[in-house]
Amino acid sequence: MNDNSFLFIIELIGTFAFAVSGIRVAANKHVDLFGAYVVGLVTAIGGGTMRDLMLDITPFWMLTPVYLVITGISLVLVIVMGRHLSRLEGTFFIFDTIGLAFFVVVGMQKSLAEGYPFWVAIIMGTFTGAFGGILRDIMVNELPLIFRKDIYASACIIGGGVYWGLDAAGLNDIFCQSAAAAGVILTRAAAVKFHWSLPTLKGENCNRGDGRGDTPE
Amino acid sequence: MNDNSFLFIIELIGTFAFAVSGIRVAANKHVDLFGAYVVGLVTAIGGGTMRDLMLDITPFWMLTPVYLVITGISLVLVIVMGRHLSRLEGTFFIFDTIGLAFFVVVGMQKSLAEGYPFWVAIIMGTFTGAFGGILRDIMVNELPLIFRKDIYASACIIGGGVYWGLDAAGLNDIFCQSAAAAGVILTRAAAVKFHWSLPTLKGENCNRGDGRGDTPE
Amino acid sequence: MNDNSFLFIIELIGTFAFAVSGIRVAANKHVDLFGAYVVGLVTAIGGGTMRDLMLDITPFWMLTPVYLVITGISLVLVIVMGRHLSRLEGTFFIFDTIGLAFFVVVGMQKSLAEGYPFWVAIIMGTFTGAFGGILRDIMVNELPLIFRKDIYASACIIGGGVYWGLDAAGLNDIFCQSAAAAGVILTRAAAVKFHWSLPTLKGENCNRGDGRGDTPE
Repeated sequence: MNDNSFLFIIELIGTFAFAVSGIRVAANKHVDLFGAYVVGLVTAIGGGTMRDLMLDITPFWMLTPVYLVITGISLVLVIVMGRHLSRLEGTFFIFDTIGLAFFVVVGMQKSLAEGYPFWVAIIMGTFTGAFGGILRDIMVNELPLIFRKDIYASACIIGGGVYWGLDAAGLNDIFCQSAAAAGVILTRAAAVKFHWSLPTLKGENCNRGDGRGDTPE
Repeated sequence: MNDNSFLFIIELIGTFAFAVSGIRVAANKHVDLFGAYVVGLVTAIGGGTMRDLMLDITPFWMLTPVYLVITGISLVLVIVMGRHLSRLEGTFFIFDTIGLAFFVVVGMQKSLAEGYPFWVAIIMGTFTGAFGGILRDIMVNELPLIFRKDIYASACIIGGGVYWGLDAAGLNDIFCQSAAAAGVILTRAAAVKFHWSLPTLKGENCNRGDGRGDTPE
Repeated sequence: MNDNSFLFIIELIGTFAFAVSGIRVAANKHVDLFGAYVVGLVTAIGGGTMRDLMLDITPFWMLTPVYLVITGISLVLVIVMGRHLSRLEGTFFIFDTIGLAFFVVVGMQKSLAEGYPFWVAIIMGTFTGAFGGILRDIMVNELPLIFRKDIYASACIIGGGVYWGLDAAGLNDIFCQSAAAAGVILTRAAAVKFHWSLPTLKGENCNRGDGRGDTPE
């Protein structure tokens, strides 16, 4: 198995895990099959699509139908497995984390290939990994989960920082990318194991208070 | 009347029906005139705008102000007609369905013209027809209606399949496009008449269960 | 201080005011630090990013990290100031209004520079100023504030009209832009002082009534 087919399998695993995540959230909202498919698809490809629009390149899923097919397989799996899916939580966590690491590295590679500096690449990598989940939650009218359980996104940023640091140290691309992926995976696994989370911001318990259209004083 | 002016009238009818749809949903949320205009406009042009961004062409409404004007006329109509609008439900259904068929065909044509294969064109056609309504519902904090009453989107996909099949059979463009539009219209009309709907996906009645940030096990 | 550094300072003030607005709204939703940062960032750069995607130019924040840094500073400020922030409402109102005026003028300039006519430029200016706040409210599951308190967006449109009118009268760019900014600021200040607001659209007190998927009659 060469490098490319290995990466491709990782990508499919990530797409599958993200699509299943979207379909399961949608199912809890009693949507129909089409709605579940759309939410699953947007969860899987939404981050990468917005990244590609910002990088001004063709959205990746328009080049091969494989992402649509994977989402379809995910939908069939959720239907067939039903309530038994929850027994596979551990497996999904592993798939999702591997997929996340891959999405971050791909998002960074694409940005660097377009000539952007590392700080843009880190944002794009985080965006690729995290934005699909934000869109998923917006579509089903939930406060995005990622805003309350942030180590998900923080893991992307840490992985991105590892990539930057090792690249600056002159190490070769394959090594930098592998280390970045490992950084994402280890950070997330450690966060879950040790119950890490960022502090919550306290509100002012007042009305919107956004300074827009409000009378001053 | 030549072909182009016929198509243009169809497009205006579709834009009008979509804008009215958005404005009426917004009105039920007690927004002000500006908010109603924005929701109407996004419902009418949102799908096509996202399509054009993904195809990397100039969003269609930036080339002529007619879509803004039609949305303004729609707003005036809703204000003037008020509660009497509900008597026109049947008329709106016809306008909306004709508009939908047109939007699907235009979305497909534009994608094919940019050199994309049919499976991309079908997605873009469905996107053009259905995404405006999703944005509308997200803006007013509703679970998108289309996720619960899917024959709307399925009609787009069936129309797209008709286009593809007839094109593969070597028929000319005008015929393929007309048949695709008829496919959309007939599917939607039949779905309403015979109360077709897709099955609803059952949730797991558990918490989010999206495998993101959750402890495995 | 030359023109450019003056404009740059104005831009930073606007970015700061918008980011603080987003972070404060997020804080009321009990999000964590990362979520607050994301909502603040999207509020500050969301409108300009969508504008740049539609104009097919590189999103402005990908060219310099200053917007990310300003958002970080805003977050620190909100954490440090906490409940005392509400005493600064008047200051935020001034910052926010200056920022709004600047965002409108920049959005118009960029559109005109790409060769679009004035009516597109006015929409893009309004979009730059107002869309970040819409995204902010969608992310935290609120009906966008701007749909209920519209003078915010109307001020953008009036400022845009001033720019157009003076340009048509042959006045030089600097004068047109300054007058447009003044138009935005004065309209908004007057709207707040005199409690101007647009009428609210009355709903039909019926179900969705959007003509989509509903049985005619």
